[in-house]
Amino acid sequence: MAEAGREIAALIEQVARLPGLGPRSARRLVLFLLKRRGQTMLPLAQALERVARGARDCAVCGNISGAEVCDICTDPRRATGEICVVADVADLWALERGGTFRGRYHVLGGLLSALDAVGPEELRLPALAARVADDGITEVILALDATVDGQTTAHYIAEALEGTGARVTSLAQGVPIGGELDYLDDGTITAALRARRALD
Amino acid sequence: MAEAGREIAALIEQVARLPGLGPRSARRLVLFLLKRRGQTMLPLAQALERVARGARDCAVCGNISGAEVCDICTDPRRATGEICVVADVADLWALERGGTFRGRYHVLGGLLSALDAVGPEELRLPALAARVADDGITEVILALDATVDGQTTAHYIAEALEGTGARVTSLAQGVPIGGELDYLDDGTITAALRARRALD
Ligand SMILES: [Zn+2]
Ligand SMILES: [Zn+2]
Repeated sequence: MAEAGREIAALIEQVARLPGLGPRSARRLVLFLLKRRGQTMLPLAQALERVARGARDCAVCGNISGAEVCDICTDPRRATGEICVVADVADLWALERGGTFRGRYHVLGGLLSALDAVGPEELRLPALAARVADDGITEVILALDATVDGQTTAHYIAEALEGTGARVTSLAQGVPIGGELDYLDDGTITAALRARRALD
Repeated sequence: MAEAGREIAALIEQVARLPGLGPRSARRLVLFLLKRRGQTMLPLAQALERVARGARDCAVCGNISGAEVCDICTDPRRATGEICVVADVADLWALERGGTFRGRYHVLGGLLSALDAVGPEELRLPALAARVADDGITEVILALDATVDGQTTAHYIAEALEGTGARVTSLAQGVPIGGELDYLDDGTITAALRARRALD
């Protein structure tokens, strides 16, 4: 096929490499869009481009937003003394869907991992310590996966923040052993947040 | 959340409405893209827009391509006397993946259906009759789903083309009863094409 056929084939390949998709679902998806070029495909393309160009990593918390500092960090109705620490923006989104937490966040960008050789410098851990030291934080709530890496990271943070005066707590009840936060239903997350406990 | 948060949320809703996706897979997909804004999200957006603006329904066969007449219809190496009739562009793609058929296509845009009230005028059936009458077609190969609607459509075409001099054949061996063409593996499609038989 000539140019446009090649462009369609290339688009299908691009889509097939996205998570949760493969060659067959990519073909179906692209064909669905090709049949709705004006009312679905073009608006989707434009929304993707607008978001791709406008999105920023928040300079304070690491959330993805459209400004230098994100909407949560600048929301005056949210408590400034409580920081909820999450590994990933997906976890922040999950907590926001729960709607219970009214403080601010800190997105680490991953978890410490001996196996994957992820150390504190690869994550936003130095920034967390600086925030707690500078911003009058009274409580740091760790909302991390209940996995080995999550626990390693939790212990590292508890030690790093010792002596800062901030209480370090952790989601407790409701997070199943080995469970990943982003897979939990909103009610479980809310219950775990309410029943958070101090780390010993 | 302020503007960008709303734009991300709106994008997730758009993606969640696509076939094969839902709210959770849309969130994961959009977040995957948000983390790769430059190297994946923007190129994807631009490819989608380019294809959305450039794609056309071929005026001859109904295939989706980038020109008034598609690459297959204008390929001088492909036989002009054989037309393979398919319901949908997805079926054309499936046959092209098989790579056996070297004639041209005719995409109906669906199948006749009493239940869904799809009549000949809703499909590109008049255009097929005109093509066969005008273009010296010697064989019309029906590559239609082995379903009631597929058979209804096949019989309609066989009757409509009676007396035109074109032989009407149909994929036979290999298409399972009740099977939908787009779900078959390439080998089965190739075998069915080779063993095509004349409609009685
Ligand atoms: Zn922020
Ligand atoms: Zn064509």
